[in-house]
Parts: sequence; C-alpha cells; structure tokens
Amino acid sequence: MAKRRTRLRSDIGWSTPDRIGVMGYDLVNELIGRINLGDMGFLEITGRLPNQRESRMFNAMLVTLVEHGIVPSTLATRLTYSGAPEALQAAVAAGLLGLGSVFVGSTEDAARMLMAALPKPGGRVPLAAIADRIVADHRAHSRPLPGLGHPIHKPVDPRVPRLFTIARATRFSGPYIRLMQLIAKRAEKLHGRALPINATGAIAAILCEMKLPPQIARGVGVMARAVGLVGHILEESRRPMAREIWHRIEAEASAAVRGKLRKKPR
Amino acid sequence: MAKRRTRLRSDIGWSTPDRIGVMGYDLVNELIGRINLGDMGFLEITGRLPNQRESRMFNAMLVTLVEHGIVPSTLATRLTYSGAPEALQAAVAAGLLGLGSVFVGSTEDAARMLMAALPKPGGRVPLAAIADRIVADHRAHSRPLPGLGHPIHKPVDPRVPRLFTIARATRFSGPYIRLMQLIAKRAEKLHGRALPINATGAIAAILCEMKLPPQIARGVGVMARAVGLVGHILEESRRPMAREIWHRIEAEASAAVRGKLRKKPR
Amino acid sequence: MAKRRTRLRSDIGWSTPDRIGVMGYDLVNELIGRINLGDMGFLEITGRLPNQRESRMFNAMLVTLVEHGIVPSTLATRLTYSGAPEALQAAVAAGLLGLGSVFVGSTEDAARMLMAALPKPGGRVPLAAIADRIVADHRAHSRPLPGLGHPIHKPVDPRVPRLFTIARATRFSGPYIRLMQLIAKRAEKLHGRALPINATGAIAAILCEMKLPPQIARGVGVMARAVGLVGHILEESRRPMAREIWHRIEAEASAAVRGKLRKKPR
Amino acid sequence: MAKRRTRLRSDIGWSTPDRIGVMGYDLVNELIGRINLGDMGFLEITGRLPNQRESRMFNAMLVTLVEHGIVPSTLATRLTYSGAPEALQAAVAAGLLGLGSVFVGSTEDAARMLMAALPKPGGRVPLAAIADRIVADHRAHSRPLPGLGHPIHKPVDPRVPRLFTIARATRFSGPYIRLMQLIAKRAEKLHGRALPINATGAIAAILCEMKLPPQIARGVGVMARAVGLVGHILEESRRPMAREIWHRIEAEASAAVRGKLRKKPR
Repeated sequence: MAKRRTRLRSDIGWSTPDRIGVMGYDLVNELIGRINLGDMGFLEITGRLPNQRESRMFNAMLVTLVEHGIVPSTLATRLTYSGAPEALQAAVAAGLLGLGSVFVGSTEDAARMLMAALPKPGGRVPLAAIADRIVADHRAHSRPLPGLGHPIHKPVDPRVPRLFTIARATRFSGPYIRLMQLIAKRAEKLHGRALPINATGAIAAILCEMKLPPQIARGVGVMARAVGLVGHILEESRRPMAREIWHRIEAEASAAVRGKLRKKPR
Repeated sequence: MAKRRTRLRSDIGWSTPDRIGVMGYDLVNELIGRINLGDMGFLEITGRLPNQRESRMFNAMLVTLVEHGIVPSTLATRLTYSGAPEALQAAVAAGLLGLGSVFVGSTEDAARMLMAALPKPGGRVPLAAIADRIVADHRAHSRPLPGLGHPIHKPVDPRVPRLFTIARATRFSGPYIRLMQLIAKRAEKLHGRALPINATGAIAAILCEMKLPPQIARGVGVMARAVGLVGHILEESRRPMAREIWHRIEAEASAAVRGKLRKKPR
Repeated sequence: MAKRRTRLRSDIGWSTPDRIGVMGYDLVNELIGRINLGDMGFLEITGRLPNQRESRMFNAMLVTLVEHGIVPSTLATRLTYSGAPEALQAAVAAGLLGLGSVFVGSTEDAARMLMAALPKPGGRVPLAAIADRIVADHRAHSRPLPGLGHPIHKPVDPRVPRLFTIARATRFSGPYIRLMQLIAKRAEKLHGRALPINATGAIAAILCEMKLPPQIARGVGVMARAVGLVGHILEESRRPMAREIWHRIEAEASAAVRGKLRKKPR
Repeated sequence: MAKRRTRLRSDIGWSTPDRIGVMGYDLVNELIGRINLGDMGFLEITGRLPNQRESRMFNAMLVTLVEHGIVPSTLATRLTYSGAPEALQAAVAAGLLGLGSVFVGSTEDAARMLMAALPKPGGRVPLAAIADRIVADHRAHSRPLPGLGHPIHKPVDPRVPRLFTIARATRFSGPYIRLMQLIAKRAEKLHGRALPINATGAIAAILCEMKLPPQIARGVGVMARAVGLVGHILEESRRPMAREIWHRIEAEASAAVRGKLRKKPR
C-alpha cells in the first residue's frame, strides 16, 4: 500500500532524560504531589487542570462508580484471577470488558440524548416540552430511556440526590439536570411506575453541565471501576470464592444432561 | 461434583434500596463528595480511609503512573479503538493487558524483594550488607534487579527524587527507601553504569513504607493507567493515528515477502 | 435481593470421573481424533456435527479469516506481548478486542441485513427489487452497506469468488448469495465506483445459506483470528518489532510538543 | 529518542489487490477450501502445512481443549456478555484471560520440563532415572508437578489414553510420552495417591514429540478455547444465567455485612 504519509501527532505527553510533560504541565513539579488521581482524569479529558469546583464534582462522580459490591464485572475479575493470579492486569481487564451497553454504557446514551436535545444550553428553552417529546419518542420506538430505573434502588437511587446536591454546591446545576428530572417525572407518569434517575443518568446530566464530551462518558465509569476491581482481587487472594462458585454452578447447570449421550452415535 | 459447600462471603460492599455500604462506610454520605478517586483506591486496598499524609503520598504515586505519552499500552488501546470505537471499555482493557512483567510488574517484583529482605522494619539492620547481598545474588543468577534502570531517564529518573521528597514530607521515608537507594548505588558500582532507581522501584519502596501488600503493587499501576488510557482514546477519536500506523508498518514489514510464494504448492 | 430462584441450566457439556459429554457426544470416543477444530466450532454453534458439505464450507470460512498479516489486531497483540510475555492469553485477548464494528462486526451487520430482507428463503422472491430497496434505504440514511468495499482488494476481493465457488460445490449457494451480489451490483452502479463484496460480506451470505444464527456471525471471525494471533506471538518472540514501533511512533508523534510547557504554571 | 532504526519485518502474510499470501502459500487457491481450521493453527506455528499424521494429531489436541462445560473461563465470558452483548469479541476475550498459570498454563510448564530433561530425543536415555530425579526435585522444592492430577477425572483422565492412542497411530509416540508416564507413576508411588497425567500433561508431551515450540504450548489451549467460548455466548443469549448467578452470589456474599456501618463515621 503506497499511500501518502500522514504525520503522526499526539499532544498528550513527552519525555526527555530529565523531564516529562503531560498536557503541557511538568509532571514532576506541577502534578506529582499536587493533584489527586481524579484530577488527572479531568486533565486527560479536558487538557487542563480542574479548578476546585470541577475537582470536587468530577471526583464525586468517579467515587460514585468505583464500587457496588458483587456485580457481574467483579465476578468476572475474580474468576479470571483464580486462573491467572500472576496476571493481575488481565483480571482487571476482564472485569472492565462487561462495562458495555447494559450498565455503564447507558451513561453515554443518556449524555448523547441530553446533548442532542439541548445542543446549546442557555436562553429560554421549553424544557418540559422537550422532555415530553423525548419520552414519547422512546415509547413510540419501544426504546428504554437511558439513565432511568434501577433493580434495587427504588423509589430513589440514593446516589442521585447526593450528586445533585454537590452539583448545586459546585454550581454545575443547570438545564441538563432539570431536563433529566423532567424526563424521569414524565416517564414515571406515563408508565405508572417508579423510574428514578439512576447514577448513570445523574452522571450523564452532570457531564453535560461540565461540558465534557459524551464520547468519554463511558470512560468515567471505566476509570472508576478499574480502581474497585483491584480491591476485589485483593479480597479474592485472601478469601477466595471463585472455585466454590464454579463448582456449585457447574453442578446445578449440567444436572439436566449429566451422563446423557445421543442414542445413535454419528 | 458433590462437594461440601463453602459459604461465599465478601465484605467489600452491599446495597439496600436506599443505602450502599463500601468497606463499612456509607457511600452516599461519607464518601461521595468527600474524598477523591485516589483515596477510594486506598480504601479498596486497606479497608479504611487514608489520613492526609497517606492520601497525599498514595495519590502522588498514582499520578506518577497515569501517563507517559506514546508507549506500547497506549498504542494497543488506540489500535483497538480504531476497530471497535463503540466499545471504549475494550480499548482500555487492551491497553491494560500489557502491564505485565516487563513494565509495571517490576513494581511487584521490587516490592517483594524489599519485603523479603526486610520483613519487619525497625531496629538496627545492616542495610548496606543486605543491599550488597541482594545485588550479588541477582548477579550470580544473571537476574536483572527490579526497579532499577530506565531507557530514557538517565542518569536520574526525575520522578524518583520528587516521590522521595514527598515521602519525607509525609513521613513515609524509612528503611525500604534507604535499602532501595543502597541497592542502586551498589549495582551502579558493580556494573559500572547508570542504574538509577526508576519510578516503579521508588513506588515499590514507598508501598513497603506504607505497609501496603506487595500482591497489589501492580494494581497501583493498573488503576493509574486506566485513567490515562481514556485520554488517549479521546485524542484518537479526534486526531486518529491507528490507520496510518497500520498501513505504514504493514508496508514495511511485509516488503521482504510481498508477492512471494513457495515454488511447489503442496 | 430476595428473588425467586431461576434454575441454572447449560446443555453444552458435563463431566464425570471417566467421561466428558459435549453437546450430547462422548468427547473422548466420538470427537477427539475424529473431527477437526472447525467442526468443533460448527458443533458449538449448531449443537450437532457437520456433514461433509458443512464441514468443508464452514472450515473454508474460518480459514479465510485466520490471517491477514499486519493489521491493527495483530499489532495490538504484539505490543501487548512485549510488555507481558508471560501471559500469552492476554496478548491474544488484546488482539481480539478490536474485532468490533469496523472490521469483523460487519459480518454480523451484513447477516442481519440479509436475514431481515429474506426471513424465509424459498419461493419466488423479487431479489432485484429487494436489493434496490436496501441500497436506496442505506443511501437515504447515509449508512454504509455492510459487507461491501475493501481498501486493498479492488476491483474484486479474491477471497469472495473462491468462497462462492465452494458454496456452489457444497450446495450452499442460494438466494442470500444472489441477494448480496445484486446489492453489490446495484451499489456500484449507484455510487459509480468499485464496491466489491468483501470477505465479511461473502461469509455473512453463506452463514445465512447455512441457517447459522446471525448473532454469532462475529464469532466466526473471533474463532479464526484467535488462531492467527498465536502465530504472530511466536514470530514476535523470535523477531520482535514492538519496541521499534513504540520508539519510532513516540519520537514522531511527540515531536511537536516535546520540551514545551505552558507559560504560566497553574 | 534518536535511535538507530531497526528494519521491521514479518514473514507471516502479505496482500496485493488480487492475492493474499500466508506463510508462503496462496491463501485463496492453496488454503481456503483445502484445509481445516486446526491445520491453519499448525501452519501459524510451524510455517508449513501439516501432513496427514500431523493434521490428525494436532486437531485431536485442539478438539480436546475446546470445551469442558461450565468452568471459570466460560462463566467470565457469560458474565461479560450480559453487560456488553453488542461486543461478542470482548466476552470471548474475558474468557481467555484466565487461561493462565493455574489451568492451561500448565501445558507450557510441562512442555518446558520435558524439553529441559530431554533436549535431544533419540539414543539411549535412562528415562526412569530422569523421571525419578524430576519428581524428587519438585518434591524437594515443594513444587507441584505440571500436567499431573485432576479434581474430577480420577484415577484416569479419560482424554489421556485416547490422545496417546492417537499418538501411536500417527507415530508421535516416543520418549517424551514415556517420560511423562514414568513421572506420573513415580509421583503416584511417592505421594501415595492418584496423580494421573491430565489433558494438559498429555498434550505437553505430544507437543514435544511433534517438535513444536514450548512457548506456544499455552497457545494451543487458547486457540481451542476461543472456539468453545462462542458456543457459550450463543447459549447465554438464548438461556441466560448471568443475572441469576449475580443476584444469588451477591445475596449470599454480602449477607454478613449488609446494612452494617462503622460506629464512628470519619
């Protein structure tokens, strides 16, 4: 393939023998020891350090998503660790791989929905009418509304009022949060059941308020969960459950067919 | 497999409709909005919140490992993203998978080496003699010393003095750091070339000072790098380099055989 | 969560001390030494062994997708292996992770498109009219037609006529292949440029002819590529290229910013 | 980093508009429709097509490792799929990641043990004495013997006599298999309990007989298991068990701490 060469360029980082630059900051003198891991996440996404309000709000969202106990991703990590304890990084990766459309991916869907509905916040916008239209649209196409509903946390996901309180305190409360709240209210009325804003829905709205790009909405959950999965590996190394899970499920799941073969072998 | 059942137990987290517990803390009221992502990492590993000294030191180590520009792991992430942009979590996972024995795994090796040499810090220990023995041992078995040497950062890895300064400021400077320094000094003399403590070596020593378990030493790098990889995905989505890399390398690497087939087909 | 228990059940395999069942076959006496790896793939998807025609056709599709030299997935595998040579499985996994919507995922999209257009093959169907509608639909929504076009293989992807010849020989040539051909012909006319059926498009059509479920269309590519990635790991272990790639790209990509810091530190 | 450039080279594959070469074979005319997936695996590892004996033996080993019902790797795949059903490749990757030192990695360890003991087969070698030394060595260092023992398959792993029968039929029975058998016999006598050669031990010995490189021994299991994991994804899509597993384990594992918080919040 004789193609014209495109110049490769990345502005994220560089190294010389005695210095390292990250997004234009001197890693050694301006970042290490001065900022926390969540601030580094903000820097990776925006290219600049957060101010105090941004640091508090962004870390609050990350802290929200680090840990939710035994869930599919922590189980995948523990099962993987039991087979390859020498490769901690692979066990963390296995746990991240399920953060797709069903769970964490809904943050991205919700952020895109809100951004599409309100591409430029500000001015007088008929938020209630927009919410009505979004709910009606999703119903008409039988599509679930991203960011609403939770199997356990009913009628309110307790993380959501906390996140919205912090959003007010850090002055990131605005039209996207109001729109999300109106969508939830409208959807609950239409469907006649509890459809609370869940953590991913709240975070999607706050990301929009902070003007962070929707395409990395899922990345916020990935950053956070990587931290939590390490804790599960440590516990699994001390009090393992993977083998017991394996043996129990194998015994139950294969009971219906164990010992049975086709009548006529090929 | 009719085996006796072992009770499954995890103490990391729990949920009820209106509350979430993480390591015995109330996630909503005690963690969200009060601590940062690095502190959550400390909580996951130790089961308790860090004090101010611990928070500063632990976040400093994490911040050190988030980003180092274009390296094999960020390239693997970008190449993966180019094929599956809808699965950001898979691109992050791909980048984490190479954090093995060659790079980040050396943190674990160095921490284990230091812990084995000094299982109980305190008291009068002949650190210089221990360092001499460790260096001689590794040389006798032709094994490289973990945590020493860097291809770019010579004669000093600039991250290391910074980390050790913070360790003194947070009172985590002690025998493990001194031992690591003596090992480096001894190795440089023996091998007659620059073998500076690198970032993973410094972090290994500080983890020992903080009494954190060596088996998650690699986990510190994994937590940190997950954050950095999201930044590379965002840049790749805006200014892609994966296709250009692919086409260039393909063209060069297959040049020697392109168009050539065996004389006699099977 | 006090939920009603659903019985867990898997009919794929079972073990007793002296026997192993797979899909109702005796693994030891009916499968090992009697069938090949591709036949096992067919068994996993259909629950039965292939006949000779099916075995030839299915293996032909798998063989097509094993290897395409240096591509993003083989590069991701090699870069990952360079950091974690002790974890071959992780390097293979890294290479698989990019088999998403851009490359291999198009098999799934094409198979779904064909199945939706022709849910029940047989009888007199106006294939040309269906093809016209599909092409027009995709154009109206500015969506690319899955399974068409290739950056290198023009004006014909050489794998496609070969696969279709085998389909005729094994009597799997029917309406789905004809529909795919009509779509390509129509699209080429409409867009005025070469849009040959590519390997994933041909395989999608053949999978439909064989009545295999579209939701595992992507799985055929994943099975195949896992085999090829092991070959790249072996070559990388003998004649490494990962470090050279890293150093070259790093040097070029960071050239524009190396040594540059913001004017006013934070 | 201004380094001297090393030429990049890969001899595995190449493409031109109308041809594709793989290991010096014409993919379209010499491979597709002529060989099976297992033969492609042999080609990737050896750089040449297998003869009939090699094809039968190599496929037999692969078929052995494709499927073992519900095991940690298939559970990790199913749990991952439940969160990201749109990314089949990620679910397969998650299942491969646990094929490490505990399960499939033992093939590599066993192959390396046999190769180290018998670097050049042929001539008169005191196999029994070598076996005695290996068993004594492992015991002295409290290291488990790779390739021996199985939690379910006792006193004989039924796959092993079958594989050894095929090895005799294909004339791949030789000193490595005899050495492995002597090691098992000696170990059973010394430890006074059943320590049958397991499937990975048998495969390790046969790989040595076939002169295949030990560093890809683990790759044989990875190739095979990728095929089996696709079958589990298909079953999970039709008869899901991931959510039930999650809810059950969560309920049991968190029972001891649910609702409990520390006395004194920070």
